[in-house]
Amino acid sequence: MNVLWIFAHPEPRSLNGSLMTDALRTLDGLGHSYEVSDLYAMKWKAVLDADDVGGPPDDGGRLFVGAAQERAYARGALSADIRGEIEKLERADMVVLHFPLWWFGPPAILKGWFDRVLVQGLGFGVKGPDGRTRRYGDGGLAGKRALVVTSVGARPSGFGPRGIHGPAEEVLFPLLHGTFWYTGMAPLAPFVAYGADRYDAADHARTSAALGERLRALPDEEPLAYHAESGGAYDEELVLRPDLAPGRTGLGVHRRP
Amino acid sequence: MNVLWIFAHPEPRSLNGSLMTDALRTLDGLGHSYEVSDLYAMKWKAVLDADDVGGPPDDGGRLFVGAAQERAYARGALSADIRGEIEKLERADMVVLHFPLWWFGPPAILKGWFDRVLVQGLGFGVKGPDGRTRRYGDGGLAGKRALVVTSVGARPSGFGPRGIHGPAEEVLFPLLHGTFWYTGMAPLAPFVAYGADRYDAADHARTSAALGERLRALPDEEPLAYHAESGGAYDEELVLRPDLAPGRTGLGVHRRP
Repeated sequence: MNVLWIFAHPEPRSLNGSLMTDALRTLDGLGHSYEVSDLYAMKWKAVLDADDVGGPPDDGGRLFVGAAQERAYARGALSADIRGEIEKLERADMVVLHFPLWWFGPPAILKGWFDRVLVQGLGFGVKGPDGRTRRYGDGGLAGKRALVVTSVGARPSGFGPRGIHGPAEEVLFPLLHGTFWYTGMAPLAPFVAYGADRYDAADHARTSAALGERLRALPDEEPLAYHAESGGAYDEELVLRPDLAPGRTGLGVHRRP
Repeated sequence: MNVLWIFAHPEPRSLNGSLMTDALRTLDGLGHSYEVSDLYAMKWKAVLDADDVGGPPDDGGRLFVGAAQERAYARGALSADIRGEIEKLERADMVVLHFPLWWFGPPAILKGWFDRVLVQGLGFGVKGPDGRTRRYGDGGLAGKRALVVTSVGARPSGFGPRGIHGPAEEVLFPLLHGTFWYTGMAPLAPFVAYGADRYDAADHARTSAALGERLRALPDEEPLAYHAESGGAYDEELVLRPDLAPGRTGLGVHRRP
């Protein structure tokens, strides 16, 4: 496997920094290759703007973000930092997003990686030979797998099925389903380090070992099974068929039983 | 009411730009005052780093983000742009977040507003007189109300109870529950402009009028009713009591019936 490890923490000496160091050593030991995008170390530009696509429209008109991205992508005119990340992404079999959970989502620097790199024509708006949009289980990144590695201050119970913060897989739905699955990547169950505000050396060793185990098992791990858009589970209005998860509503209905 | 309108779109001539212009005029007409944080126009710094809190720790040690924020907040040493936003927030009765939905969340520039402005001691980690953390229905921003105004390319059915993208209120849970409610703000039902990729002048007029109606009704509108952390709905493990939403799991259980 070739792994792209995307890291978003301002402090390399943090718990997450050490976990990444350990994890990369594990990948090495397993004979996998990897590339790292350490977004803070790269001083990654977080904010999507007209400079990403070669500047404002020549005719002085409105910037339409998606269309401008797609044109710039097609003619190789995206900014160099974005092109570099797309090349890494194309080489990767597996993408790891590693970040502390801030306000129940990725830090801005990582959100900006999605906004800027997953351009129209690659991340969305990709048409198949039948003219239909390839999306949710298919798309420009089909064939890759993706893993979230994150840390939270809370205990596991708060992120459980009826925990106050919401189940981790539902809180992370915009990433797991709305970003990975949407672009065709197979999402793996997230790896969450709980209680990260109160870590001692033993907690660190235990979490690092648990992450190592996940990495060892990765090539054979079953992804989270969401329904595919093109698989017949949804009607023409993109609503789940009544015989699937009958009578239920909410994010959970999109997981295959 | 004094409204803080936070806007995150790179193109002022966009649909969202026009909707904001119309909305501010409506607020004026209703006799409300407002301040605007137009994040792109302000060239808002999206990425939280040590410069936010007066630089890296003096002792050359690790940056602990929350603790460093809280110390800098207490001694007035947060960077000037953050202090400015906190002052606006303190003056506001109502906060509006206005953005196009990118990858099922706010653009990076707006995510960075949360990461940087909602510091420990204000947005989280606020203790009450009993020593308990004030959170979910209480906290540093208690008494304020908050509204998401967003645009999506999709039709409403895809964001319905069984729609492929997930129900809008659950996709936005990290904001509505994990950010607004967490910090004590009362979240209102989000205003979503659907089909925004295919807008004509009539669609624009209709959406602008609908947003105007929402703004007119705001002072009397009932917020989304989530359970409060301190109200007895959760046990010591922060799990919802079994007699509430019995047998159910997922994000939806946290709404009061």
